[in-house]
Amino acid sequence: MMRLAVVQFRPALHAVHENLEFMVRTASDTDAHMIVFPELATSGYFFLSRDEVRVVAEPLTGPSITALRDVAERMDRVIVVGFPELDGDVVYNSAAIIVPGQEPRAYRKTHLFYKERHCFAEGNSGFFVVNIPRLDCNLGTMICYDWRFPEAARTLALRGADLIVCPSNLVTNVSHISMPSRALENKVYLAVANRTGTETRGDEELLFNGASAIYGFNGQRMAEADDHSDAVLITDIDPAATRKKSFNSINDIFADRRPEFYA
Amino acid sequence: MMRLAVVQFRPALHAVHENLEFMVRTASDTDAHMIVFPELATSGYFFLSRDEVRVVAEPLTGPSITALRDVAERMDRVIVVGFPELDGDVVYNSAAIIVPGQEPRAYRKTHLFYKERHCFAEGNSGFFVVNIPRLDCNLGTMICYDWRFPEAARTLALRGADLIVCPSNLVTNVSHISMPSRALENKVYLAVANRTGTETRGDEELLFNGASAIYGFNGQRMAEADDHSDAVLITDIDPAATRKKSFNSINDIFADRRPEFYA
Repeated sequence: MMRLAVVQFRPALHAVHENLEFMVRTASDTDAHMIVFPELATSGYFFLSRDEVRVVAEPLTGPSITALRDVAERMDRVIVVGFPELDGDVVYNSAAIIVPGQEPRAYRKTHLFYKERHCFAEGNSGFFVVNIPRLDCNLGTMICYDWRFPEAARTLALRGADLIVCPSNLVTNVSHISMPSRALENKVYLAVANRTGTETRGDEELLFNGASAIYGFNGQRMAEADDHSDAVLITDIDPAATRKKSFNSINDIFADRRPEFYA
Repeated sequence: MMRLAVVQFRPALHAVHENLEFMVRTASDTDAHMIVFPELATSGYFFLSRDEVRVVAEPLTGPSITALRDVAERMDRVIVVGFPELDGDVVYNSAAIIVPGQEPRAYRKTHLFYKERHCFAEGNSGFFVVNIPRLDCNLGTMICYDWRFPEAARTLALRGADLIVCPSNLVTNVSHISMPSRALENKVYLAVANRTGTETRGDEELLFNGASAIYGFNGQRMAEADDHSDAVLITDIDPAATRKKSFNSINDIFADRRPEFYA
């Protein structure tokens, strides 16, 4: 069993110091084994160009992730947080997976949404699973619009994920239709950390609609936030319980797959 | 635009003549361009052995499908119906796709559920799409437990399906979590023709829970039956409307796929 926390808040655009201060405090104060923050939580979301986002981008070894890593080590907590990741000249829409005693890793968003294409490079990390022995948990990460592609969660589950976390900046509600299915069809836990608030650039306003949630491996909603408030959702989960993929004496949702017939 | 009908009823085990009579009458009386019946609708469901199911199995050219083909030709209606298909010595859990003016085809269930494995051979037809020029519709078929595998509907959609029909004999309610997502994630219509009633063999009773439904390509439920009554659901759909997979000036749910990162 482990205690999982999802943090919903309203990152301010460009305000890395302020956003980070909130997250360091929240990560320190939240009594959980793992804490998941939204997509691009250090920087805000609605950038318009590569030049603009480069100003707030940092490498995985930069001050923002280092500050969160310090909290993670001090409090013995896993932290997953979205941030604009600088790698040489290139910026990715990434999530840092910070595990005490391990080197942090970055998942780089595979499927870019809308004007992210003007700001970020397409992710090249692929979908990977981080084993966390102390929690007996295999952690997979995807980001926001990755939800739209059943292949994303499927790939993580086939690679052994018990729990998929999904830092998000969702601007529509349609993901609510698919998120429970992602959990059910793979028999994994799914934690969606979404943000709230609005960001306006020129004529265009984006409304981020909260409703962060933790889904159990049968697709049931175990915890859910409203669409506009700051919130910390906390749920106890049992990662090992996801590993038996059979559900009767004959069927097993992974063993029953027939990839030779899949496009 | 085309008019789609889904028929929910209670096939009687072994009673091919009676089941067929009901379907011939219903297919004749239902004013729709396409009529979808449940899985194994000619024969009932809960067989225990290959020998038992072989008694009611027929080839695609056998009397049952021929009788329905006669109705299809006479009334100019497409009919999809589940039946135990005999091919040489082997029996498949199949769905006949009967299109006026075309040779019927059989989709053979890819993922077998529970004791079907004692009765049927694993399907070898793969997932295919039938073009119906007169309806401007590309029709894909999957059967019941195939819903559990996102790869099934995905494969049909990538092969051009506008509409996926899913003859079913569902015995749990969990599919209700995933069916809307199958429609949404692929931007296709989805028609689930489930049966009602119970079948008991020895100590084991199967309860088939109806709730047949037609889903629009945004995952919305356009029509739904209750869990126990005979019903004919009829909905007008626009197959061509599913073909534009973009949803803003930048994103397209098929063009955005990155198969090189999928397991």
